[in-house]
Amino acid sequence: MQQVTVELGDRSYPIQVGEGLLDRNDALASLAQGRSVAVITDSVVDGLLGDRLAALLKPVAHQSIRIVLPPGEATKGWESLDRIFDELLANRFDRGSLVIALGGGVVGDVAGFAAATYQRGVDFVQIPTTLLAQVDSSVGGKTAINHARGKNMIGAFHQPRLVIADTGILATLPDRELSAGLAEVIKHGAIADEVYLDRVAAAMHRLRARDPQALAAAVIDSVRIKAAVVARDERESGARALLNFGHTFGHAIEAGAGYGRWLHGEAVGAGMVMATDLSLRLGYLGVEDLARITAVIGEAGLPLLGPAWPVERYLSFMSIDK
Amino acid sequence: MQQVTVELGDRSYPIQVGEGLLDRNDALASLAQGRSVAVITDSVVDGLLGDRLAALLKPVAHQSIRIVLPPGEATKGWESLDRIFDELLANRFDRGSLVIALGGGVVGDVAGFAAATYQRGVDFVQIPTTLLAQVDSSVGGKTAINHARGKNMIGAFHQPRLVIADTGILATLPDRELSAGLAEVIKHGAIADEVYLDRVAAAMHRLRARDPQALAAAVIDSVRIKAAVVARDERESGARALLNFGHTFGHAIEAGAGYGRWLHGEAVGAGMVMATDLSLRLGYLGVEDLARITAVIGEAGLPLLGPAWPVERYLSFMSIDK
Repeated sequence: MQQVTVELGDRSYPIQVGEGLLDRNDALASLAQGRSVAVITDSVVDGLLGDRLAALLKPVAHQSIRIVLPPGEATKGWESLDRIFDELLANRFDRGSLVIALGGGVVGDVAGFAAATYQRGVDFVQIPTTLLAQVDSSVGGKTAINHARGKNMIGAFHQPRLVIADTGILATLPDRELSAGLAEVIKHGAIADEVYLDRVAAAMHRLRARDPQALAAAVIDSVRIKAAVVARDERESGARALLNFGHTFGHAIEAGAGYGRWLHGEAVGAGMVMATDLSLRLGYLGVEDLARITAVIGEAGLPLLGPAWPVERYLSFMSIDK
Repeated sequence: MQQVTVELGDRSYPIQVGEGLLDRNDALASLAQGRSVAVITDSVVDGLLGDRLAALLKPVAHQSIRIVLPPGEATKGWESLDRIFDELLANRFDRGSLVIALGGGVVGDVAGFAAATYQRGVDFVQIPTTLLAQVDSSVGGKTAINHARGKNMIGAFHQPRLVIADTGILATLPDRELSAGLAEVIKHGAIADEVYLDRVAAAMHRLRARDPQALAAAVIDSVRIKAAVVARDERESGARALLNFGHTFGHAIEAGAGYGRWLHGEAVGAGMVMATDLSLRLGYLGVEDLARITAVIGEAGLPLLGPAWPVERYLSFMSIDK
């Protein structure tokens, strides 16, 4: 196991990366000790991992319940939240309770927002089960639900107490989701560290073949980069905006196509190519930068181009972006 | 005008107390300067004060919209929040926007929670228009909505940037609401300062006659006591629990009777008598303490007794309380 700490004073927390962390985990057992614990997950992940996590929690928790949501982006709405609140209240969860998000970005966002607002905030733990969630969305405390008028428009900053990235889980991840996760890995390389971007490019073949060591290395490097940015700018007033590279175009693609058609990582992949292309035209980057970004995104199995919409359509979906 | 600062490091903010602050207010004008501003209020308060506030904002704000909710406790739910989010998004409010709560506790709580969660948090200003909101709920950053299973179960700590308590507004407050506000004034005296409790008791006649100086003095003293407690324990992990005196019984009365039958302050008034009575039986307080609390609560025009329910009914509504 490797560990990175997100340094945020008295709200600092560890991110654990390694294989098999879900089966034996002293840090989680100690956090769950004697408390009411709710595991929030989706039906796909629950079938794969729900019982394994329950076996870890049962001997230590005061009570442990499981709230299973439907998979997919539509779960990130008020209905899911209300159902979570209802079950927590029905089981008399108090302020000392613990919420665990077991799933990808959707589950992490909705469970994290529930934890941020249930009785004005309870502790929570992220157990990300997709590559995208392990390298990006589980780190940094951003939580949110969608509104009919825009994605992630309602939310809170609420840092987890612990993040557990069990890279063994990635063995069963669908190819398309693996590629989507690689988009955020590439993004971290592009914004933070040229050496790391070269390393990702060199490892791409092994990453797509799910070489365990290559995956663990990509997750730990990515998490380290993101943790450093978050520690500098928790609430995205400055440096953290860097993490939005590719996301302005990406969000426009997701929104314009209708949520769920493009995976978030796919849209970010194409978005990074578009953003780099724009920077080239504006004179900020050279043609070799565009070639490099395009190559690595292509090798990750990601689309290089967004839909062929007129620029006005892109702009109309971009201007509502935060 | 008098001013108290809530000391919370870089989130410190002033509470202004005085007559006529709503008509000319440099601090508010400066906060609203060049920004998108949403005034959230209810239809009763809007009729009395909405145009006055709009006149102050119009010359300085980039845009200023008004969101008028129905009066009453039922407004503290998800439907109101969703309507607020919808209007903010429709008017393209971004993270730099300002939300102003103009109203009593219900408006303050729902508008505050909207501000806490819209795009993960925007600035907000409290303009409390009831005595209860001026002396209590507008100070300290607690925001919430109700859930079918319990009051204030969903919420956030989100401190305002400025609180404006215009005591001139209290001249038109219904008698019942004035008494309800006095319950929290008495509570602050009871928990913090024996001298102040005596002063409140001595001023009770003038307070109920709405003597402007007596009201302004009660508000500023009460706010000073609450601000000191909040500064010591922002998130209610210790000292701030003091502020719950009378509230455990009070919440049980409100919930058991059905929300809206008892005003919050009325339930807190009876709740303080019940809590003192219990403390007497447990040997923590003397009979003179009970006599003193009972006398001042009676003089405030508040009920001294909760409903004559069996103790099990009280307990069942108390155990879900945070």
